[in-house]
Amino acid sequence: MQNIGYIGLGIMGKPTALNLIRAGYTLHIYARRPEIIEEFKKAGAKTYASPKELAAAVDVIFTNVPTSADVEDALLGKQGIIHSAKAGTIVIDMSTIATAATKRIAEQLEKNHIEMLDAPVSGGEKGAIEGTLSIMVGGKAEVLEKVRPLLEKLGKSITHIGGHGAGQVAKACNQIIIGETIVAVSEALHLAKASGVDPAKVREALLGGFASSKVLEVHGKRMLDNDYKPGFKAKLHRKDMHLALEQAHFANVNLPSATYATKCIDRLVLKGHSELDSAALYLVTEE
Amino acid sequence: MQNIGYIGLGIMGKPTALNLIRAGYTLHIYARRPEIIEEFKKAGAKTYASPKELAAAVDVIFTNVPTSADVEDALLGKQGIIHSAKAGTIVIDMSTIATAATKRIAEQLEKNHIEMLDAPVSGGEKGAIEGTLSIMVGGKAEVLEKVRPLLEKLGKSITHIGGHGAGQVAKACNQIIIGETIVAVSEALHLAKASGVDPAKVREALLGGFASSKVLEVHGKRMLDNDYKPGFKAKLHRKDMHLALEQAHFANVNLPSATYATKCIDRLVLKGHSELDSAALYLVTEE
Repeated sequence: MQNIGYIGLGIMGKPTALNLIRAGYTLHIYARRPEIIEEFKKAGAKTYASPKELAAAVDVIFTNVPTSADVEDALLGKQGIIHSAKAGTIVIDMSTIATAATKRIAEQLEKNHIEMLDAPVSGGEKGAIEGTLSIMVGGKAEVLEKVRPLLEKLGKSITHIGGHGAGQVAKACNQIIIGETIVAVSEALHLAKASGVDPAKVREALLGGFASSKVLEVHGKRMLDNDYKPGFKAKLHRKDMHLALEQAHFANVNLPSATYATKCIDRLVLKGHSELDSAALYLVTEE
Repeated sequence: MQNIGYIGLGIMGKPTALNLIRAGYTLHIYARRPEIIEEFKKAGAKTYASPKELAAAVDVIFTNVPTSADVEDALLGKQGIIHSAKAGTIVIDMSTIATAATKRIAEQLEKNHIEMLDAPVSGGEKGAIEGTLSIMVGGKAEVLEKVRPLLEKLGKSITHIGGHGAGQVAKACNQIIIGETIVAVSEALHLAKASGVDPAKVREALLGGFASSKVLEVHGKRMLDNDYKPGFKAKLHRKDMHLALEQAHFANVNLPSATYATKCIDRLVLKGHSELDSAALYLVTEE
């Protein structure tokens, strides 16, 4: 299982794919942007004109693209891998997409003897570069075991959550907790400031106790420094919050606090701050 | 400064006071309940019939009582310490009360040459017993320095936040972050469950990443185990959330997410669950 395909060499995909090359795998890529094709050629990767052409040469294919439609296109589309992948090929989809779409795609692939894992990640660009991602996996446990050594090159924690789509559900849970916690920390820092108290002192004191979180530590610091260089862009967090609310709708569960956090992130993006880190929710939660 | 007074020997006050005895201080207490008086007599404490009688014998007085009115009564009331405390006496109020009340009381005491610190804590009964509280201090920095060795027997982190009331503001921030994060974790676990995914697996996966928090770790575990033995009682967390909203009102800041969490905790208490740990918010956030 030395021949690995990679489709989707963006902010998250590119460092992940480079880590696979570094780990000694032969990488086969499909990309559109000439500078990406050039960079990966130099790094020793083989390049193809379509997912379909790529699929014939590999045993495992990663996808890491923005939307459900992009995943569907790469896997099931006219030039999709489904037309040429060998029986037993494993698709590892690291994209964050709709749970329902993942299930539907996995079912289609299975009819063609192609296995799929949904494997969305947490940890951002930094985690991708350093190979310290948290990877939330849905699909068959035995399929995960076959590719676990591969995933261990990319992440420090690999958790099998459940069947097809379970990884996407876990990712949705991850994103709403982060969104809601950013709102919570924003409100606390606003309360401190409006009360004439130094919010930096409050954050410092709270990091030691039950209010402590990765968000208070990392995003809270960004708020205090007014430094919203991403990190994780507001427009992507917005997309993920809406995916989570969509899943909540399908699952018949109410998430009022996640809904409020989503409204805030909508407001942030509509104000033109889509490229800022989503810690910039601080800027719209005082209104 | 070996003679320490203590008023308010409840869930938090009792272990804190016992830690002071253990550290070698001579403890002077005022208490109403005979069993508490008995226990502290056995431990070597001196007991008094009123705060006023106690105050004449000590240099530092801790208060650790439920409400603003209780603090006011012990300090400024008919039998309050204000009538007999020596000039230079330091009051350390560990209660969680209104910021405005703290400021008013401190001002009154100061006119009588009595110093006050607001020093509410985080860390719960466990932190009180183990002497690992986080202590958020408001008042004069030089007064804090005089009693810092004392506080170091009780907490692992002692932060000077600002002037009178700043400790209470920090505590309010602490409580709203915890309340809002409990709601966030509840929603995520409900989403997982409603989607047919094991919430325990989701929690496990998320603990490694940006969604991680003390609340996901501790309160999330309580939710999964359906074990709401406190910890920190819902009725007390409710009181603190309302104090925070009151402070937000005075400070002219909107906290929509904290307001929603407060509504949830109101509902929990009104349903008769006031004695459960506030992680039981999980039970009312699916409605």
